[in-house]
Amino acid sequence: MKIALFPGDGIGPEIMEQARRVLDVLALPGLVLFEGDVGGVGYKRQGHPLPQDTLEMAKAADAILFGAVGDPECDSLERDLRPEQAILGLRSALGLFANLRPATMFPGLEDLSALRPEVARAIDLLIVRELNGDVYFGDKGTRVLDDGRRQGFDIMSYAEDEVRRIAHVGFRAAQGRAKSGGKGRMCSVDKANVLETSQLWRDVVIDTAVEYPDVELSHMYVDNAAMQLVRDPGQFDVILTGNLFGDILSDQASMCVGSIGLLASAAMGETQGEFGTLGLFEPIHGSAPDIAGQGKANPLAMILSLAMLLRHSLGREDDAARVEKAVAKTLEDGIFGGDLGGSAGTAEIGDAVLQRM
Amino acid sequence: MKIALFPGDGIGPEIMEQARRVLDVLALPGLVLFEGDVGGVGYKRQGHPLPQDTLEMAKAADAILFGAVGDPECDSLERDLRPEQAILGLRSALGLFANLRPATMFPGLEDLSALRPEVARAIDLLIVRELNGDVYFGDKGTRVLDDGRRQGFDIMSYAEDEVRRIAHVGFRAAQGRAKSGGKGRMCSVDKANVLETSQLWRDVVIDTAVEYPDVELSHMYVDNAAMQLVRDPGQFDVILTGNLFGDILSDQASMCVGSIGLLASAAMGETQGEFGTLGLFEPIHGSAPDIAGQGKANPLAMILSLAMLLRHSLGREDDAARVEKAVAKTLEDGIFGGDLGGSAGTAEIGDAVLQRM
Ligand SMILES: CC(C)[C@H](C(=O)O)[C@@H](O)C(=O)O
Ligand SMILES: CC(C)[C@H](C(=O)O)[C@@H](O)C(=O)O
Repeated sequence: MKIALFPGDGIGPEIMEQARRVLDVLALPGLVLFEGDVGGVGYKRQGHPLPQDTLEMAKAADAILFGAVGDPECDSLERDLRPEQAILGLRSALGLFANLRPATMFPGLEDLSALRPEVARAIDLLIVRELNGDVYFGDKGTRVLDDGRRQGFDIMSYAEDEVRRIAHVGFRAAQGRAKSGGKGRMCSVDKANVLETSQLWRDVVIDTAVEYPDVELSHMYVDNAAMQLVRDPGQFDVILTGNLFGDILSDQASMCVGSIGLLASAAMGETQGEFGTLGLFEPIHGSAPDIAGQGKANPLAMILSLAMLLRHSLGREDDAARVEKAVAKTLEDGIFGGDLGGSAGTAEIGDAVLQRM
Repeated sequence: MKIALFPGDGIGPEIMEQARRVLDVLALPGLVLFEGDVGGVGYKRQGHPLPQDTLEMAKAADAILFGAVGDPECDSLERDLRPEQAILGLRSALGLFANLRPATMFPGLEDLSALRPEVARAIDLLIVRELNGDVYFGDKGTRVLDDGRRQGFDIMSYAEDEVRRIAHVGFRAAQGRAKSGGKGRMCSVDKANVLETSQLWRDVVIDTAVEYPDVELSHMYVDNAAMQLVRDPGQFDVILTGNLFGDILSDQASMCVGSIGLLASAAMGETQGEFGTLGLFEPIHGSAPDIAGQGKANPLAMILSLAMLLRHSLGREDDAARVEKAVAKTLEDGIFGGDLGGSAGTAEIGDAVLQRM
């Protein structure tokens, strides 16, 4: 079992350290760990946000645990050298097209959400976001028009097979959730009243639905979805959407839960390895350069990302559940970091999780 | 003074009727009203969502009051004939590039927001959304690739002058708000870490800022903005953004206020008429076909749109304030429609506003 650890920038290294301590306690048989540079750290040490040896490590691994990238000192570099290219490059080079972003209210945290407790309590949804297409990966550039004006452009597009494979992931997730009490519903979010890309998206999702008669499919425009996620997030089960809309809606949904410091995500590919599907696992939050290196960052999203890795790429459901229970217990016991209005530091929260394992 | 009234689909006609009663009470000297078909109604009566004579009426008017468009019966028409083309067509034919979407908490409604009252109470922001460019108006279509796969595509783009003119609107709005207690801040929202269109947007906004040293400019990625609008919407003053991100964030912000049935919007052009700038004024909400014709729709967003029309296109600040006060009083007195958990019908709410004028 090979796990590649890519701590990255900002708070990445300090939260990764806590995930590593959890791994030590689990003592997985035959585990091999690699560590690689990504993001601003990759650029500063090796001249590229995704150095060649990091990419090789990722390809050779069964799963990747990713901290965070983003470094204000790199903001004026040309686009290809910016920290964000590490995560975009890994998603695309490894064909990690399916982003799973669960948002569930942790018992005891209802009062910390900006939403009213009765609204917040009902949140139990999974955003399935496409990660390899959309306006993220189309042709883009800045050109000078005939009349001398500069124009920036980015091409948004989806081909039918790209939509179909993520739709299958969404439908299957809805089926899986139905087995453990989920609503068996999927809402596909697009902007088909304006975008041709969305119209094709919607047509293909409707086509694919015939294979999943047990899943109740609905469609929603993205503006309405952003509204409904505030009004009544409890109405959603699985939300299926494209790369750009998924970026926006999943951050919004995570904040409804109370803190972005708690939510993990998986980016899954199609390659089936010895233990499961190759995946990259990372907290939803960013590198938080303002609090980096101060031992203040909440490591729980990172630790929960490790749990997702154990489940989805290594097939170790028991270990995953053990880690998740320890995290839930930590929160129940009121051990809160600054993001939740508490004062526990990074290592202290890590200690608390280890004790509860 | 010529006002074109375009009621449109669904609840459009019934809420427009209430706005018209308000107009009657105001008894503006020399007022001429036109009424035109738009949306599904336009298509059904005249074969086009934006019939030629409607467009002529719009061009001849000093201001346009617009209800709502959208009709499920028209969803399978080809894109050019769908109801939404009425509003997109008017925005583009009349050069209405500046969408002003204020979101302010009405006293007494804090408890109706899905946000906690103390979070909701602080909302007082203005979204300035560009309306004539972005992925809305670029080339779009569905093509068959060499290997036979269908692909939907839409080109996103902004040219520097398009960004500059909307940036000026945003900066001036921040200055104007500062005079009456506003924070004098503008946050420009983009996705410059991924999109070239956003990078150009950001560069031009930064350039334009030198003319407004009194406005504090910041930048935020759209995913973070969607999150911050839940976490702490009170941090914002003016939000400046493009067409697509503005569509999403303004609906989200409106729901933070408690009901989308309360929020008005203006789409302004550059043409200065005799009384003010030509503008189109409409509620943020849609045509709500599920409750159409039942006398249930809340007409307040429509009436507040009329108030914006009086202020921005007819230069009648006093009349605008009179209408707005009557609406605020109606809400203070607890006269709520179904969208706010009350039982007052469309005409009843209209009556209440008229009495309070
Ligand atoms: C860092 C950035 C490129 C990335 C994205 O937009 O996908 C991030 O926001 C995310 O959601 O993982
Ligand atoms: C009806 C639709 C085309 C429109 C838009 O996306 O601009 C609407 O959502 C709006 O925000 O005015």
